[in-house]
Amino acid sequence: MPKVGVILSGCGVFDGSEIQEASAALIALAQRGIEYRCMAPDIDFKVVDHLSGQETGEVRNVLTESARIARGKIDNLRDVKGVDYDAFILPGGFGAAKNLCTFAVDGAACSVNPDVDRVLKEAHDAGKPIGFICIAPALGAKIFGAQGARVTIGHDSGTAAAVVATGATHVEADAEDIVIDDTLNIVSTPAYMEAKNPAQVFEGISKLVEDIVTRSS
Amino acid sequence: MPKVGVILSGCGVFDGSEIQEASAALIALAQRGIEYRCMAPDIDFKVVDHLSGQETGEVRNVLTESARIARGKIDNLRDVKGVDYDAFILPGGFGAAKNLCTFAVDGAACSVNPDVDRVLKEAHDAGKPIGFICIAPALGAKIFGAQGARVTIGHDSGTAAAVVATGATHVEADAEDIVIDDTLNIVSTPAYMEAKNPAQVFEGISKLVEDIVTRSS
Repeated sequence: MPKVGVILSGCGVFDGSEIQEASAALIALAQRGIEYRCMAPDIDFKVVDHLSGQETGEVRNVLTESARIARGKIDNLRDVKGVDYDAFILPGGFGAAKNLCTFAVDGAACSVNPDVDRVLKEAHDAGKPIGFICIAPALGAKIFGAQGARVTIGHDSGTAAAVVATGATHVEADAEDIVIDDTLNIVSTPAYMEAKNPAQVFEGISKLVEDIVTRSS
Repeated sequence: MPKVGVILSGCGVFDGSEIQEASAALIALAQRGIEYRCMAPDIDFKVVDHLSGQETGEVRNVLTESARIARGKIDNLRDVKGVDYDAFILPGGFGAAKNLCTFAVDGAACSVNPDVDRVLKEAHDAGKPIGFICIAPALGAKIFGAQGARVTIGHDSGTAAAVVATGATHVEADAEDIVIDDTLNIVSTPAYMEAKNPAQVFEGISKLVEDIVTRSS
């Protein structure tokens, strides 16, 4: 059975990992008997009050807050090697576009956290599949766009244009759909970029997990 | 279709709502087409660093942090009436036993947050079913134990003894099981009190949601 690394970016849709998406991925993995391990970079981020939607001026740590989703069982991404896992999955949430890279601010010109970049390239070079959820495919596009990566972020034309500007191909999809790049071994699903409720999120992510697991077996 | 209130206690197993349990409940509700609304009390709590497991000395707000799970769509429990919903569900996590009541510290002698107490009694008096997950059945025992409530917190004998000391009856159960109190219209499941992975959590919570929804239809 494959072992999957789940790369988190905090804990909460507006400044970290989208919680329901991350939980859906963990449930879908466990339902298939797949061992997983959560991981996140040890970096600070700006807190958004999820009640008001406003930045508070407070700073928290991505690894420490991601540990909330992982129930404390989490690794510093610095210590992870791409070849240590059979596949990686990245849930969405603004953390994927603000903490793991700067796509939310800089679009196609964004920079990627060095450990995220390293781990995903190590995994890819070793032939491991990678699953990108929600806005995380924009991060995948930044890293693998020059190789012509084919991803979806749903139907949002502005975000899709920024994805295309990385060199990637964007494919529109609904919440329950997955888009497969067979050549690069990359799978993506829109989740809350399109989903109206957590059941749609779970359906799309379950398909992504099923495909990733089949590829990594 | 019934409308269900989900009472949260923060965001993270060690000082708030258990995230995977809360997400599992929301997914299971949405899969059945059930409308839900999250709610939490506007009170402070002591932060536990989920990486180290230690208290940090920091204080955060239960409502504000619960909003992370609810994607910002959440109500102050003070403004909720028990009769406004067809059923209530309370996920576990230490927040249910430290923020919604003081069971984690005081056991059967614990006090219950006044709005939690009020909303659940209003709902119960109006014949609405209530679902308690993980350690939350201890809170249910404190409120409804004098009426002979029948609940499970799994197999932990120490916690079960404290539950029994409220006047409630404790029934042992596994992660995938639910325990039904047909007289009081209360359903409980052990979730992470017993579960080894989020698939078991999802299975037990799905059964609880299915039963609650049937009762409130």
